[in-house]
Amino acid sequence: MPTTPHHLQAVLLATGNELMTGDLVDSNSAWLAKQLTELQVGVRAKLTVGDQFEELVWAMTQAIEKAGLVILTGGLGPTSDDLTRALLARVSGRPLQRDPELLREIEDFFHQLGRTMKPVNRIQAEIPDGAQGLSNPVGTAPGIRIEIGAATVFALPGVPREMIAMFETHVRPWILQRTPPTTHRISILCCGRGESDLVEELAEVIERIRSCPELSFGTRASDSVIALKLTGPRADELEQFAREIENRLGPIAFGRGNSTLAEVVTQLLFQRGQSVVVAESCTAGEIGHEITTIPGSSQVFPGGWISYSNEFKHRFLDVPQPVLDSFGAVSDACVLAMAEGALQQSGADWAIAVSGIAGPGGGSPEKPVGLVYFAVGQPGNLRVFKRTFSNLGRETIRRRATLTALNALRLRLLNIEPVE
Amino acid sequence: MPTTPHHLQAVLLATGNELMTGDLVDSNSAWLAKQLTELQVGVRAKLTVGDQFEELVWAMTQAIEKAGLVILTGGLGPTSDDLTRALLARVSGRPLQRDPELLREIEDFFHQLGRTMKPVNRIQAEIPDGAQGLSNPVGTAPGIRIEIGAATVFALPGVPREMIAMFETHVRPWILQRTPPTTHRISILCCGRGESDLVEELAEVIERIRSCPELSFGTRASDSVIALKLTGPRADELEQFAREIENRLGPIAFGRGNSTLAEVVTQLLFQRGQSVVVAESCTAGEIGHEITTIPGSSQVFPGGWISYSNEFKHRFLDVPQPVLDSFGAVSDACVLAMAEGALQQSGADWAIAVSGIAGPGGGSPEKPVGLVYFAVGQPGNLRVFKRTFSNLGRETIRRRATLTALNALRLRLLNIEPVE
Repeated sequence: MPTTPHHLQAVLLATGNELMTGDLVDSNSAWLAKQLTELQVGVRAKLTVGDQFEELVWAMTQAIEKAGLVILTGGLGPTSDDLTRALLARVSGRPLQRDPELLREIEDFFHQLGRTMKPVNRIQAEIPDGAQGLSNPVGTAPGIRIEIGAATVFALPGVPREMIAMFETHVRPWILQRTPPTTHRISILCCGRGESDLVEELAEVIERIRSCPELSFGTRASDSVIALKLTGPRADELEQFAREIENRLGPIAFGRGNSTLAEVVTQLLFQRGQSVVVAESCTAGEIGHEITTIPGSSQVFPGGWISYSNEFKHRFLDVPQPVLDSFGAVSDACVLAMAEGALQQSGADWAIAVSGIAGPGGGSPEKPVGLVYFAVGQPGNLRVFKRTFSNLGRETIRRRATLTALNALRLRLLNIEPVE
Repeated sequence: MPTTPHHLQAVLLATGNELMTGDLVDSNSAWLAKQLTELQVGVRAKLTVGDQFEELVWAMTQAIEKAGLVILTGGLGPTSDDLTRALLARVSGRPLQRDPELLREIEDFFHQLGRTMKPVNRIQAEIPDGAQGLSNPVGTAPGIRIEIGAATVFALPGVPREMIAMFETHVRPWILQRTPPTTHRISILCCGRGESDLVEELAEVIERIRSCPELSFGTRASDSVIALKLTGPRADELEQFAREIENRLGPIAFGRGNSTLAEVVTQLLFQRGQSVVVAESCTAGEIGHEITTIPGSSQVFPGGWISYSNEFKHRFLDVPQPVLDSFGAVSDACVLAMAEGALQQSGADWAIAVSGIAGPGGGSPEKPVGLVYFAVGQPGNLRVFKRTFSNLGRETIRRRATLTALNALRLRLLNIEPVE
């Protein structure tokens, strides 16, 4: 990033003892980094320290030397652990003063909640002389903006919801005034092929993208979904490369941006006026829960069965007892019968049935932990297949089974056979 | 932490461009911080920088000045982006040399995978003169341990699975030789009361704990579960305070450490030889999925119904059509009928039924987004109650409904009435 001017670089400073003990994963920094990157602000460093004054002074001193924009999170509450006000006063060399307007805003906020402001909250209206108080639309802790040396420092609350609201209200507009948005990003989401296989298949395109000095290409894998990320200054050029990749990958690429398999599947069902039911054993409700992350999914998803025990499979999905006795619940015959039962009972257009061994126990040489059977399809037209997921733990196996099932339904809705 | 000797303090240094763009949440640092805190090593700061040599040099220089233990993650791969080896050589002032033993280990690892080592991987056997190569039991990238100034630096791979394996193999034993484990921690988990109410109720005990200079008390809220954390040098003293808190809170405190409501509930059912079924509308499988995070939960959980549509509720759980027509799916009458239907169909001992408005649409002045009805109990002995969760988004409402339902079952299993 050597060509980016200094004032378009940022340092993130996360504070709080709970970040130093591993009690809390710092999701703020990743969220902020994503926003800043999209706004073309390069993040030079992230610093994280606890609520110790000398560590805070060290970190802030480093931060304002390294970048023109410093975003600090945390330490704005009313207790003695909340050192951000004192920190900004120390590093800027300016005394704290009570800001009457800020005090009124805090009082108003308490008033709206039907509560009376406690005296201790008055301290939250204190900001260094010459700094600007930033109103908090969703909480009691106001933020602070202050110029220190060549840097502009924004101090925001540590609570993610409040931090996000204040970033949008105060920081984003400030940045947009200074950086014309000329970086474009396209993220192509893929499912059904591994990261290294994708990179190998696309080697030639990737090389052409990377040979353009202004363009970048990267991948990111999250469970069974791989994101291919293209960045560059010209939207049409990126779009051309993106379409080339999507054409080459065909149905492997299922969407862009923040889309999800659940969203694509519900959209396809909605377009066709069709419905899907689930019969879940090892995933035990995760597929239903995932489908219903999409608002309005009730139009395509009447419900399903969490058929965890063999008896439940037999009684409510009519899985024949001989199937369970001869082949077991983790078998092609069982998932087929589960899907048939779900279709017959519900009259839905499509069914997904899943049964597998999520571990840690219950595996055998023939049926190891990670083995999952799937049946996906329509009445009289069901496809059965299996996967053996790496044994990366019970929840990872179940998550991958859920996404694999949704992807299989997506492919069948597109009239493409899932790979056996 | 002013009394802790310098060599028992650590700085974490996470590297990689993907951490600077928000494409990846740094889970390594939180995991490492947790381990180090439990090992009584105070984490003074976390630094995160991208794969730029000058930023890496800055961060490493800061790190070795601040603490006696520095754990760096990332940058050990074979590509030109992997700068950790060059960084350690630069900051230590010692040239890189190829370590023949390390080379043999890397070759062996490839051999075990049935693959041939590529020439590019040879660079991974290069470590600064005087440093020690650390074998990687689960990957190709060896780690490095090196003394720079007064600090010991461990460089570990960035892939979480490899990082964890190498921490356990190389770093933990090194720390244990230097720090007798004399800090104890107790974490008391609570559900059914808010964080500020808990702190108010316990104000007197908390004050007594905090008046002991060696003891500390903190809280952490995660959805509907609040953890009360006590830390101190003497196990019996902590235990006494913990029991006092647990006695005062009664059934509000449901467990300790890493326990979950699902674990406690399945354990109670297991002890009684009883079973539970679910009838889920707005949570749509999340309760079943949560119960089955516990290995062996099949002994107490035969399954359930994801009764998302009204028709599904009527057809498979016998919710009377007049109930749906007169009161709607989000009503006390509906969840009662759902639970009764689930009990009758399954013959299970207990049932949980949930129906609510998760949003973002579908709310009204009488039934706002966040309103959720619950029915929990046994045949002829069901309790119905409702909650109105803050509208913090669809997934937060559903998560809180899931935990509230499990907590209600826990209380009923303990013969305690859930608060209406």
